[in-house]
Amino acid sequence: MTDLNKLGEIGLIERIRQATTAPTHTETIRGIGDDAAVFDWETDYGLLSTDMLVEGIHFDLTYVPLKHLGYKAVTYGVSDIAAMNGLPIQITVSIALSSRFPVEAIDELYEGIRAACDAYNVDLVGGDTTASRSGLIISVSVVGKVPKELITYRNTAKANDVVCVTGDLGAAYLGLQLLEREKQVYLADPNMQPNLSEERAYLVQRQLRPDARTDMVHELRDLGIRPTAMIDISDGLASELLHICHQSGTGAVIFDENIPIDDQTHLAADEFKISPITAALNGGEDYELLFTVRPQEFEKLATNARITAIGYLTDTPSQIVLATKAGQQTPIRAQGWNTAAD
Amino acid sequence: MTDLNKLGEIGLIERIRQATTAPTHTETIRGIGDDAAVFDWETDYGLLSTDMLVEGIHFDLTYVPLKHLGYKAVTYGVSDIAAMNGLPIQITVSIALSSRFPVEAIDELYEGIRAACDAYNVDLVGGDTTASRSGLIISVSVVGKVPKELITYRNTAKANDVVCVTGDLGAAYLGLQLLEREKQVYLADPNMQPNLSEERAYLVQRQLRPDARTDMVHELRDLGIRPTAMIDISDGLASELLHICHQSGTGAVIFDENIPIDDQTHLAADEFKISPITAALNGGEDYELLFTVRPQEFEKLATNARITAIGYLTDTPSQIVLATKAGQQTPIRAQGWNTAAD
Repeated sequence: MTDLNKLGEIGLIERIRQATTAPTHTETIRGIGDDAAVFDWETDYGLLSTDMLVEGIHFDLTYVPLKHLGYKAVTYGVSDIAAMNGLPIQITVSIALSSRFPVEAIDELYEGIRAACDAYNVDLVGGDTTASRSGLIISVSVVGKVPKELITYRNTAKANDVVCVTGDLGAAYLGLQLLEREKQVYLADPNMQPNLSEERAYLVQRQLRPDARTDMVHELRDLGIRPTAMIDISDGLASELLHICHQSGTGAVIFDENIPIDDQTHLAADEFKISPITAALNGGEDYELLFTVRPQEFEKLATNARITAIGYLTDTPSQIVLATKAGQQTPIRAQGWNTAAD
Repeated sequence: MTDLNKLGEIGLIERIRQATTAPTHTETIRGIGDDAAVFDWETDYGLLSTDMLVEGIHFDLTYVPLKHLGYKAVTYGVSDIAAMNGLPIQITVSIALSSRFPVEAIDELYEGIRAACDAYNVDLVGGDTTASRSGLIISVSVVGKVPKELITYRNTAKANDVVCVTGDLGAAYLGLQLLEREKQVYLADPNMQPNLSEERAYLVQRQLRPDARTDMVHELRDLGIRPTAMIDISDGLASELLHICHQSGTGAVIFDENIPIDDQTHLAADEFKISPITAALNGGEDYELLFTVRPQEFEKLATNARITAIGYLTDTPSQIVLATKAGQQTPIRAQGWNTAAD
């Protein structure tokens, strides 16, 4: 018998993918291996993405308000559609929950789900509701759409492409550290008031209620830019960069000083004695977009404050490195889960 | 605080539906309230359905082989698409599982998933894999397609329509009783051999590895029949009939002697001192199709051995009854969950 932990999530997905027969429907353009599956929607491509969130694994209800959790569940799914350069149209949300949840808790969860549906302009069209033996499990499936000429995969980046990210990274991870610390304080002494001051609000909000960057999908279209590859940052910059490089057959040089990190993230990282770069590389849950553009396209977005160039791709697949100002280079590895290449 | 059990699943779905704003995308044709959501796929309608299966609630791994479970999970989703008169194209399967499962268990599960994908001609295009705190949870989403002129909803049946079912009913429920009894025998004395003889094979197979009736979707098309309403029988004939009647604003008269019941179901029902009619009405999990046709259309399928006419619809919504040969009529109620009309 083989231990699941030895194989890792990516190893498991690869095992499933390899044993899966090729699609037989002409409607199926892409199957397993990207942020969403792709199907032929006549003048457009349709996109289908699915995510599962499990209490005790993905969220801790001692500090996650159900309304935020509902919003975040939708964000998960919509972010996958944005990563294909698409926009969401329909969403289904299934929930399994134990009898410890009163009806009002479900109302609160759905309040967040609906707020997110409004924010992302997506129609809530169905789902499943069932009992569970323990805890809350949420499964979200999203159907989206993208004009055929704009679809963006993971495996189509090329050497010399500029590597870009939207927003800033690492904040969601530091937000999680803050919430976990307050939880321990509370568990030790339930009379203690939480110490989540105003200046920490951004980090906590990035963890509890992140936004999918559908705004950037619109913005890239307005700028007339189609990325050569794109992925959303759910597991951390390192993991997502490795996906693009491995699938596209490229190497990469990322400049550590270019990685966009908010001041609050820097302050909290100091306090927790964590490198902010490590938080950005391996923290995950930022739901920003990582994408690549041809160098000649880059000037169109060079002045955009919400997009940062962090490096470039090379034709040496074995070298995916972080470069310091001093010229030192260290290999970038994904933490937590094994990668297919390890 | 309101207890979830008081509200019931249908009450909960209604609560969610009522609080959900109307779809804003022109692509969204139907949202919550049928077997699948419907979207405009240009020359066809697209269908999106999602189901969640939870260990300890929907299946018991002490007697459900993982391969059969994988097959059944796909059947759940495909059956919803068939109920819209559509055929499946793409499926995503997400699993959450605890570390007690070795990799070989997942291989076995996916063997069943792939066997079902082959049987139903549907492409496995993605999913999510994650850890769970306890047990196995499976979420299946299916995208399907139906020509616009053939789509079949729940709320479009009319008085005088003939009520039909495919196959036979109640077998899956008796199969479950057999498996549960053998489990108790085994728990009392692990040296006892299971007593599931050949003549019980049909019932056990109906419970463990039911088939979605995509074959009947093809057959109805070949016969040139578009049902006026259709639903799949997952919760039992009574519950599904009430859905069609309540949503279409009709009553119904169902003749108990017409309900198709297999000989093995009759024998096992005798043994368990259960009425076979009750098993058909309330047992569920048969995954047959319940549909209605205009009376003048009925002759086209009157000689079809796989389709049985069991009654007709009336214009008296308050009267949904089971009629005996002797002329006695009793109201049909859904068991287990509350219905919206109660």
